Amino acid sequence: MTINDIQDYLKQHDLNAYIVTRNNMFIGQDVLPEENKIKELTGFDGSAGNLIIFQNRAVLLVDGRYDIQARQQTDPSMVEVICTRDSVSSWLHYNIHEPQKFLYNPWCHSMSEVDYWRRSLNWHLFIEDKSNLLGDRVSSEQAEIFELKEEFTGVSSEEKISYLTEFMAKNRLDAYLLCESDSVSWLMNLRSNIIPYSCILRAYALVHANGEVSLYTSDFSKLVDELSLLQGKSIGINFSRTPKKVQDIIKIAGAVYRSVNNPITDWKSIKNPVEIAGFKSCHIRDGVAVCRFLNWLDQNYADIDELKCVDKLRELRREQAEFYSESFATIAGFGANGAIIHYQPTAETNQKLNSGSLLLLDSGAHYYDGTTDITRTVALGQPSTTMIEDYTQVLKAHIALTSQIFPVGTVGSQLDAITRSALWNNCKDYTHGTGHGVGYCLNVHEGPQSISLKNQVPLQAGMVCSIEPGYYLEGQYGVRIENLALIVEAQEGWLKFEPLTMVPYDRNLIDKSKLTDAEIAWINNYHQQLGEKLLPLLDEETARWLKNKITPL
Amino acid sequence: MTINDIQDYLKQHDLNAYIVTRNNMFIGQDVLPEENKIKELTGFDGSAGNLIIFQNRAVLLVDGRYDIQARQQTDPSMVEVICTRDSVSSWLHYNIHEPQKFLYNPWCHSMSEVDYWRRSLNWHLFIEDKSNLLGDRVSSEQAEIFELKEEFTGVSSEEKISYLTEFMAKNRLDAYLLCESDSVSWLMNLRSNIIPYSCILRAYALVHANGEVSLYTSDFSKLVDELSLLQGKSIGINFSRTPKKVQDIIKIAGAVYRSVNNPITDWKSIKNPVEIAGFKSCHIRDGVAVCRFLNWLDQNYADIDELKCVDKLRELRREQAEFYSESFATIAGFGANGAIIHYQPTAETNQKLNSGSLLLLDSGAHYYDGTTDITRTVALGQPSTTMIEDYTQVLKAHIALTSQIFPVGTVGSQLDAITRSALWNNCKDYTHGTGHGVGYCLNVHEGPQSISLKNQVPLQAGMVCSIEPGYYLEGQYGVRIENLALIVEAQEGWLKFEPLTMVPYDRNLIDKSKLTDAEIAWINNYHQQLGEKLLPLLDEETARWLKNKITPL
Repeated sequence: MTINDIQDYLKQHDLNAYIVTRNNMFIGQDVLPEENKIKELTGFDGSAGNLIIFQNRAVLLVDGRYDIQARQQTDPSMVEVICTRDSVSSWLHYNIHEPQKFLYNPWCHSMSEVDYWRRSLNWHLFIEDKSNLLGDRVSSEQAEIFELKEEFTGVSSEEKISYLTEFMAKNRLDAYLLCESDSVSWLMNLRSNIIPYSCILRAYALVHANGEVSLYTSDFSKLVDELSLLQGKSIGINFSRTPKKVQDIIKIAGAVYRSVNNPITDWKSIKNPVEIAGFKSCHIRDGVAVCRFLNWLDQNYADIDELKCVDKLRELRREQAEFYSESFATIAGFGANGAIIHYQPTAETNQKLNSGSLLLLDSGAHYYDGTTDITRTVALGQPSTTMIEDYTQVLKAHIALTSQIFPVGTVGSQLDAITRSALWNNCKDYTHGTGHGVGYCLNVHEGPQSISLKNQVPLQAGMVCSIEPGYYLEGQYGVRIENLALIVEAQEGWLKFEPLTMVPYDRNLIDKSKLTDAEIAWINNYHQQLGEKLLPLLDEETARWLKNKITPL
Repeated sequence: MTINDIQDYLKQHDLNAYIVTRNNMFIGQDVLPEENKIKELTGFDGSAGNLIIFQNRAVLLVDGRYDIQARQQTDPSMVEVICTRDSVSSWLHYNIHEPQKFLYNPWCHSMSEVDYWRRSLNWHLFIEDKSNLLGDRVSSEQAEIFELKEEFTGVSSEEKISYLTEFMAKNRLDAYLLCESDSVSWLMNLRSNIIPYSCILRAYALVHANGEVSLYTSDFSKLVDELSLLQGKSIGINFSRTPKKVQDIIKIAGAVYRSVNNPITDWKSIKNPVEIAGFKSCHIRDGVAVCRFLNWLDQNYADIDELKCVDKLRELRREQAEFYSESFATIAGFGANGAIIHYQPTAETNQKLNSGSLLLLDSGAHYYDGTTDITRTVALGQPSTTMIEDYTQVLKAHIALTSQIFPVGTVGSQLDAITRSALWNNCKDYTHGTGHGVGYCLNVHEGPQSISLKNQVPLQAGMVCSIEPGYYLEGQYGVRIENLALIVEAQEGWLKFEPLTMVPYDRNLIDKSKLTDAEIAWINNYHQQLGEKLLPLLDEETARWLKNKITPL
């Protein structure tokens, strides 16, 4: 199927446009390259974007991150790239002035999204694509599914299901249809290798009041059959993550659906004692691997390149117990590459390392007992004064948030601003969030909480977040300093962070004269603690390296 | 009409409950005491609350501020007071488990609210009260209406209307129905004395594409007539501030309504050059009045009480040019009364002043060229060490926000957190917002922006906000320090505050050893600037007092 084919179809059927999304029916989850219909139609393979195919034009809406890439990957005679923050509905609101008929795939858009279109754009018609123009949305590739053992999860699947049936009883529901794969993975203690760098099992789960669960990973016709048995029953669904198509199915089945937020989103964000112990333990092993890497880097940087760093780090992590996979593609950006926020080295961009600039290294792993994500920026050779200045400034922001006490109810957006406030007073900023939530051997980016501009989810004890302010000098270098941290109670009604990540900061980049006494004490204390944990586990050479790095400032 | 009468009606008509709100058809605006149906039915006269009358019980939902007051003012055998943060719909969701039929007055609830009830509580029925059980919602009291002259508004009503007709043309609207009184007052350059401490003209305005405007202040049957002439026309309305009843009227008239946010909300929040000049000018006059008051207080505090302070301050403001009225009821709280955030002295609570505690004084005025709102906390006699500590801490928060630079796009919630961050690190906080938007001779509290926990409106150059952190020691004293400030550009893409309020801080309460050099410089600079502006306007005695107060720290 090509854009031209779709345009012919639109003309034949007197329709004005087709709305294409990257989503498949696992709304909000990443898709496999072969499932990406926007890539298939336009060539653009960025992680966000919407395509609207009109009879005589096609517009690709992308955000600022993908403006250049989208123009490079698409044919301008076929596709008009528009860089905008607008959603599909806002863009239609401002740009389409005549009533039109829009086709869309009801498996790939949530009930909330379609409902919003219909209410906010009520002079247009939105029509379901019943002929499934673009074909199946789920790859036929088979995943290996595995169970995460109770020694790692802390709670059995049976017990988790009982939480949900209790919740359903309270909400007077006969069933709950979970269309959110990460929640299903958590509920069933199941994982799979379908999506690279993620442990998610892609599945829907229909959970009945008696605790019976049916899982659907690919054959959704059976879901239709099972739902049709629920005539007259009350089914809870999360409108914002349930495909419009499912609403139709439930309606036809004669069941009653109700908007009931999926409680698992919150439950799984609050780590249980076994998960917390796992997070602490895997961060010590991860710290061992990263320290061994940094020592190796110190010895060898003159002879290697970015890709070699990626390989070496993977190799050292693989040696650690309970390692499953990397948790995302390692960012190893030397010099100017470090200033490109979403940089990943490729054969084409790969830089040889050398003295006199910074290496920004953002990497992590899934272990069966937790997930890691760490960024360290290190000076190769003697850093310049401005490098030291910028690093020290970012480190101050990193410490400011890590040592911030905040009342219960505080949301990520507020902590994000607190972290930036000193940088802002110098009219400096970074164009990414300060931190994200982290799943437990699941997704390295996992909500509902995040420490970012818009996030309004109250932070709670037991959540894990990254803390990663940065500063980027285009064409020169980037600085980012990232730890994962656990949220714990400071005193009743008040919360604080406890760092999980155990790797020293680069003392060659710290201007001690710019730090307050409290900041110096914080760094010395952090270094002392990680020394106590890592030194017994390190080989002699790395231990010598670490002792040197953690001498009090 | 009593609660019993309503319960009889419910039983006769097979209805389960009646939802009563404080609102009248001017949704979101304050109501006159005689318009408050919740007060009429229950005795409770707080500024927020919802009443749900069932056949055999009545529940009054109030927030934490009004828990005690509501219990004191109501009869527990008639009304069950429930302290909750829940909205009516959330409370119904969690507490009413059987499908029910609810009656409500469609003039007093917005389209959005009723729409939300129907979508989120779709197993209940919501039925319009066509018999107008509780009678008219608008007092028959006549207001004095006056025009705010163009020398004060800077822009004529004709020009403002032309902005709106241009906006309507862009949005393909034949008319816009404004149900927001503050927007109508701004658009027409009209004000009235109907609501104490406010200059608002309570009115709807139906604005036609040709610029013709019809105002409706009480006789809404004529609005029905006029709307019925708009058959087939397209009318813009703001769903969240337009009564459900208006939707019915437009539907019956055969007009088409569309959700188009009222642009005046933003336009009027950004002050024009004449308004900015007015704000600066009236703050100098207001500063003269407050300085004269503070000097008088220093001389006389041993012989007076809180109410005398309120009277004296009103008298001194009245002497200033362009004074119209106080902008809210003055808070003069001595000692423990200062710790009650919404305290207003009455004959019963009135305290005599004396040495050894703090007086918290929060007051303001409407002038024809702007609106003021200032809080100063002053020590009478020698303050204690903890008073000085607490005052200094609040002053640091006040300075932190006033001198914060922030990027375009920053919202109030973020600045609120930055202001609190140092207090939070000591597990201290204040239970009110850090700042509110301010109208221009209109409402002293006027959005859309505010510097508070939840506000997500981006701040823009030309907006005026209060900056008022505080700290309260129950049973002892309260500290609050409030200036109004104008938002101005710091450099391209960056904003900062410029203080409007011109009154010195109490140097007897400042512990200089706790201030950074930057904070000391900030205070000295602020004092120097206000000295330059006020000294030429002060009588000799007050000038002597002020010079003493603004000597560099």
